[in-house]
Amino acid sequence: MRNKFDRQLSQLNTELVTMGALCEEAITNAVKYLTDNEENSKNMCLDADTQIDKKERDIETLCLKLILQQQPVAKDLRVVSAALKMISDMERIGDQASDIVEIAPYVAKKGTLGETHIREMAEAAIKMVSESIESFVKMNLDIAWLVIEHDNIVDDLFDKVKRELIKSITERHDDAEALMDLLMIAKYFERIGDHAENIAEWVIYSITGEHRKRPENKESSTKGGIG
Amino acid sequence: MRNKFDRQLSQLNTELVTMGALCEEAITNAVKYLTDNEENSKNMCLDADTQIDKKERDIETLCLKLILQQQPVAKDLRVVSAALKMISDMERIGDQASDIVEIAPYVAKKGTLGETHIREMAEAAIKMVSESIESFVKMNLDIAWLVIEHDNIVDDLFDKVKRELIKSITERHDDAEALMDLLMIAKYFERIGDHAENIAEWVIYSITGEHRKRPENKESSTKGGIG
Repeated sequence: MRNKFDRQLSQLNTELVTMGALCEEAITNAVKYLTDNEENSKNMCLDADTQIDKKERDIETLCLKLILQQQPVAKDLRVVSAALKMISDMERIGDQASDIVEIAPYVAKKGTLGETHIREMAEAAIKMVSESIESFVKMNLDIAWLVIEHDNIVDDLFDKVKRELIKSITERHDDAEALMDLLMIAKYFERIGDHAENIAEWVIYSITGEHRKRPENKESSTKGGIG
Repeated sequence: MRNKFDRQLSQLNTELVTMGALCEEAITNAVKYLTDNEENSKNMCLDADTQIDKKERDIETLCLKLILQQQPVAKDLRVVSAALKMISDMERIGDQASDIVEIAPYVAKKGTLGETHIREMAEAAIKMVSESIESFVKMNLDIAWLVIEHDNIVDDLFDKVKRELIKSITERHDDAEALMDLLMIAKYFERIGDHAENIAEWVIYSITGEHRKRPENKESSTKGGIG
């Protein structure tokens, strides 16, 4: 019985890693499309998102089957229920990548991108996603906490980008619509960071059994965060 | 056995209704704070959000216990797994209400609110949340589909508000920061609508066993949606 359980757990592990890799692929191509505006990058992002949605269903089925057949307890049950939570964060990361490619052409046309710190934000967000998956694969608390720390960097970059956009609207009266679209894109990256942080929190939960309490300043630091 | 299962199911039902009511309370008070800017509305919203987070954990535990003890199949299992999904949408609705009260004071100070369709958006979003809970309580497909239709209204209102904000930035050079904050608030209401739509989709799934496929135009209609 335990052997079968371990087999199913390692299958769950593999599936989650694949889903995580698809998330990285979706964001990376969304960022690529934002700069190169090539159909190919767009399609690769949307394809990854479609696969992510399918993976979410597959993994959910696997988790429920695992709970039903193996009736795990304690840490085993935590790992499975954490997996159930992680996949919905990963699914949203895929959605946000798709949302970015939806707006990208409008922004790219105006060439407003170069003036902002949005590329830095994108890189920081992708780093968080990769590390959150890594913390899960290695069941490594240190990496998980690193991801949680990194979220502040992304949040600060969002505020920076927001100030840059307000500046170019008020001082140079640049195209307001393109700048608002750019603000939305910045917000997507901030949210991707938040979802990576959630994933890291689920890793911590499945290892320690404790829900990490968000510091009080968290809310204000993600002021304007859209969940 | 079946009796115990039915008791647990009806407990799950009650818990979900309570959580739904808390979501309505959170949004309603967020909207109130947006207009009256009174500490009391803010606190009631944040309190509701805290209770929502606790409810999510309680319901999750109940669902896992229910799956472990009763090993439900077919429709019974669908209802429980749909519940597990619905609570994360409800949890995010609570987060978005809190996010709104975080920005509200900045916006209220500038009094930019009156010029936009944001109140209409708020009402439409609250209506969707109430109806999505109702569709679950009554296990009513018609109401669930109604919620899904209503999401287009909220999405259209978002585009309308966005155009209004761009207008007041470009034509009247109104305070860009307050207007961008207002755009964020509009986006929260759009997302609340999306989460209500998700809840309705989970109701449809638990009744019919089918995942409703989003129409192709859905993505573009929620262009800029933040998941």
